[in-house]
Amino acid sequence: MAPVVPRSTDHTAVRPLDVVITDGWWAQWQRDNREATTPHALRWLERDGSVENLRGIGSGAAHRGFWFSDSDLYKTLEALSWDLARGSSEAVVAAVAELTAVIGRAQQSDGYINSYVQGGHEKRWDDLTNGHELYCIGHLIQAGVADHRSTGGGELFAIARRAADCVVRDFGEHRRPDTDGHPEIEMALVELYRVTDDRSYLTLAQQLIDVRGHGVLEPHHFGSAYFQDSTPVRDETTVVGHAVRALYLLCGVVDVYLETGERALLDSAVRQWESMHATKMYLNGAVGSRFEGEAFGDEYELPPDLVYGETCATIGNIMFSWRLLLATGESRYADSIERSLYNLFAASTSVDRLGFFYNNPAQRRSERPAAPADERPTRADAPGTRPAWFKCACCPPNIMRTVASLGGYVATHTGDGVQIHQYLPATVSAGPATLEMRTTYPADGTVELTVTDLESPQWTLALRVPDWCADPTVTVNGEPADAVRRKGYLEISHYWRVGDTVTLTLPMPARLTVPHPAADALRGTVAIERGPIVYCLESPDQEPGVDLNHVELLVDRPLNEETRDGTVVITATGVARDDSPWAGRGWATLGEQPAAGGREVTLTAVPYHLWANRGPSVMRVFIPVQ
Amino acid sequence: MAPVVPRSTDHTAVRPLDVVITDGWWAQWQRDNREATTPHALRWLERDGSVENLRGIGSGAAHRGFWFSDSDLYKTLEALSWDLARGSSEAVVAAVAELTAVIGRAQQSDGYINSYVQGGHEKRWDDLTNGHELYCIGHLIQAGVADHRSTGGGELFAIARRAADCVVRDFGEHRRPDTDGHPEIEMALVELYRVTDDRSYLTLAQQLIDVRGHGVLEPHHFGSAYFQDSTPVRDETTVVGHAVRALYLLCGVVDVYLETGERALLDSAVRQWESMHATKMYLNGAVGSRFEGEAFGDEYELPPDLVYGETCATIGNIMFSWRLLLATGESRYADSIERSLYNLFAASTSVDRLGFFYNNPAQRRSERPAAPADERPTRADAPGTRPAWFKCACCPPNIMRTVASLGGYVATHTGDGVQIHQYLPATVSAGPATLEMRTTYPADGTVELTVTDLESPQWTLALRVPDWCADPTVTVNGEPADAVRRKGYLEISHYWRVGDTVTLTLPMPARLTVPHPAADALRGTVAIERGPIVYCLESPDQEPGVDLNHVELLVDRPLNEETRDGTVVITATGVARDDSPWAGRGWATLGEQPAAGGREVTLTAVPYHLWANRGPSVMRVFIPVQ
Repeated sequence: MAPVVPRSTDHTAVRPLDVVITDGWWAQWQRDNREATTPHALRWLERDGSVENLRGIGSGAAHRGFWFSDSDLYKTLEALSWDLARGSSEAVVAAVAELTAVIGRAQQSDGYINSYVQGGHEKRWDDLTNGHELYCIGHLIQAGVADHRSTGGGELFAIARRAADCVVRDFGEHRRPDTDGHPEIEMALVELYRVTDDRSYLTLAQQLIDVRGHGVLEPHHFGSAYFQDSTPVRDETTVVGHAVRALYLLCGVVDVYLETGERALLDSAVRQWESMHATKMYLNGAVGSRFEGEAFGDEYELPPDLVYGETCATIGNIMFSWRLLLATGESRYADSIERSLYNLFAASTSVDRLGFFYNNPAQRRSERPAAPADERPTRADAPGTRPAWFKCACCPPNIMRTVASLGGYVATHTGDGVQIHQYLPATVSAGPATLEMRTTYPADGTVELTVTDLESPQWTLALRVPDWCADPTVTVNGEPADAVRRKGYLEISHYWRVGDTVTLTLPMPARLTVPHPAADALRGTVAIERGPIVYCLESPDQEPGVDLNHVELLVDRPLNEETRDGTVVITATGVARDDSPWAGRGWATLGEQPAAGGREVTLTAVPYHLWANRGPSVMRVFIPVQ
Repeated sequence: MAPVVPRSTDHTAVRPLDVVITDGWWAQWQRDNREATTPHALRWLERDGSVENLRGIGSGAAHRGFWFSDSDLYKTLEALSWDLARGSSEAVVAAVAELTAVIGRAQQSDGYINSYVQGGHEKRWDDLTNGHELYCIGHLIQAGVADHRSTGGGELFAIARRAADCVVRDFGEHRRPDTDGHPEIEMALVELYRVTDDRSYLTLAQQLIDVRGHGVLEPHHFGSAYFQDSTPVRDETTVVGHAVRALYLLCGVVDVYLETGERALLDSAVRQWESMHATKMYLNGAVGSRFEGEAFGDEYELPPDLVYGETCATIGNIMFSWRLLLATGESRYADSIERSLYNLFAASTSVDRLGFFYNNPAQRRSERPAAPADERPTRADAPGTRPAWFKCACCPPNIMRTVASLGGYVATHTGDGVQIHQYLPATVSAGPATLEMRTTYPADGTVELTVTDLESPQWTLALRVPDWCADPTVTVNGEPADAVRRKGYLEISHYWRVGDTVTLTLPMPARLTVPHPAADALRGTVAIERGPIVYCLESPDQEPGVDLNHVELLVDRPLNEETRDGTVVITATGVARDDSPWAGRGWATLGEQPAAGGREVTLTAVPYHLWANRGPSVMRVFIPVQ
């Protein structure tokens, strides 16, 4: 089971479907997530005080770390619960039991729980603007929902529900006029409604969305747009403020729409999604340009080097896009999820799955020091390699829960068919049939789907045509299929038999991508892409003497693909520019600038998500053109 | 009198000279500085607690504002002291007396003073890394030196010296191994040595420079390069870390060189100056690209929109460049001062001289809310107009002391002549002669200098040829002068008579400037300049319907100059690009991107320093070219 299972069937174009990822890159990551990342995270949560903060309530010990440290624990528990849905594990079961017991003992009799407040550092509900109390409980609820969906709901679910009931008692029916500075609980409450059928949770989610935007929070020095409190959500035209907050709120907004069908909510969400994707999103799926306020910038404010690009913000977009996909059935939302997953999200984690980027640059001009071993830097330190953990450790458990629940983002179904959104080796069991999907995608663009079980012979298989693919072809049992293009999918209506095999071919020659002409920081550059993968130039791969700060790409030369150690590497012809005639000068009068010189070189590009796995490096996604 | 009067004459190429600015723009600013900014600042210092923190020591009242608030008061007192050197003022004299009395009462018997420590919030010298105690005392010393140079030295000077003696007692002769996290006291101690001839101050300045760079400060999450503690200054190759700290340290480094002649110090300073000017400085004089750590970025990291560009950092470069000018006599240092003064420094202050920018963008894509009236935002809020004051109020009094002492940056002398570095209406009294300088520069490039008094007929007049001027001409009494070009100056050796008039003509047609090809964020753009003035496009001046986020300049069309309300405005032909074919898309495959369209428009450029004086606006210095 996976996140987002709408209760109402009236407002979904497609319905979620949990698939089992059977092999390949994502299956390996799911295994690593359990075997490597999970024990690593559990150690850090002990070490950084997140567990002890809850365990030691009443002991008089000072709270350690950020006041929202509980949420790191809850997100980890959510990850572990989704992981258990994939198959049992003694170690994971034991960890869930132990941490659940800690939380259970910490919870007050009326359901309230917050280690910072209970530690005496703040009064209950006294600083909603900054205190993150509802944010933390929101994550607890999501952990409880995951527990319910995965195991049927044990003590963790019971704790979560008690906490939610406490919130409903104190906030419901407008007993309080305000809301939390950090949205999160909205989507959690809707999810809790979905597993309990208790409408008070849905009603409260709606209330918290309704009051926001009317200046109900205390003033913030970044302005009330920082936490989406300057404009009511139904009136908002674009994403503003803190990127994670904006996107988490939008998840809740679509969740409420999915249950209530209030069109104004969906319209606002689509409007903001479109604005973000056209003007505030990077090719690699980064959203939220600004370090200041971890915020969305202005339209076309897309610096590749100074981008914040928080991992959690891209996860926010994955969750947001998924909900819009359920609402509309349009492929563009799955396209965005694919772009996010294969680029920024994948880049957020080291290949050993024990290191994480909090913010994700698309250009690094100089080698920064490697992340210190066994230390927790501040979130925005941006070292040369991925730190093991962070003082503000929101990203690693957010990555974990996303990986563990990835099977929920692959396929959907409707009354008369199955829709495949992501291509990876998997078993897809829908009402009418079971399909085995086999592919080495995205190394290769061929996807085979075989019907292995059948309940009904007449249904429609819909296969997403990625936005980057111009000429997909599809066959059934080797014969060209009669496919209809609809909402970005190839729909194949067929009288199916067990053993039928559909082969989708998505040609993915390497290509060059140009940015919008108003993207000032990217003017005069191109990026290399192949299929869903954004490439980068990284210093370890370049010829001796090539400084990536002084190169240009010759765009009329061919791009060459070759496979090295299982990775498709792309080589291109460029120029190592000789800027020495500029020595000592940063500027020149037009017409008097030094003549350009340089030598032709081969530039080697690797998938962006693999950068910074070989020590500190110089890297760039966007390559100047001559 | 003015800052930086080296005691030793062995290591100065030219000697400082205090000139009286008699008329024009800078004289007006000096008057406004006294009449408008000074009472404004004094009100805010009372209101924000800076005075009360010192006045109330022992009262048990909590310290208000930042722990280095004393420095704002000291910098203001320095400004007032320089201002008094320009002519007495009852109000200013009274303010200095009152504030000096407050400081005198606050000072401990052993000379120590720091309102945060004395208020019980910290122990003396207990947190040099972050505490700013020596930084604050450094500013007190500079105020005392200003008092000494301006009035001969009264109680303010005595207080400053007692504080310095306390520092010498506790730190001198390596009684402590460390130094302050924020350099400043180094240059202050050298200046104090200059007015007292007490070498213990110079020796301590040298010691504090020597120990720095060896990791003597506590670790900082931005790394020890943040406060220049990662590399000893003699080994450093470029400016790193917090820009104001780096530049204040370099001022002290050159000051020590000027007194001791240690070549390694000068070499490092020149090396860092050159690196900064070639790779880390903006056309408008901004230095320190990064919001994170208020720091220098990598080479060619020059975003126009996300630049930090702190006003104090540019003031730091003015002070640093001035010292190097004294050491070398080379015009490039005066060029940098000119560029800084007429662009970023001038832009830092509103035309009514009651509002200030802390950080200074070179591009603003959307209108931000105006600065709230009568409030102190955080330093980095970057509103649409200039706030009246800041929570961290380092910049406004730094601007005030620079304006008040500007006469010290205009001219120098040597045994056989006078050097003019900046062109403005002024009386220059050197040993051999008195000169009256008349000009409307930079509105016009003509400068007249008339000999009005004479002690010796044989000396050399050196006139700076700005780096932007290709074809200067000079006459004496209307006849072409026999001028020699040396170190960037036109040197005229003449047998002078009273009444001789030298006319320098610096043609300044509007021109287009291109950035270094490695300046990624500026690729494909030009800037408009005229003489020393950098221009910008600002939304209030554009034709209806022109969105500055979607314009291009046609570089082969002429630039036209016209004077509007006393300001030279430049118009150019450009294109209002029609980006609507891109609607909904941020990216396109090369070769498939929508065709460029648009209409020709006239773009109007105004001096950058005047932007944001007509309410919030959209603005850009760097204009895309077609």
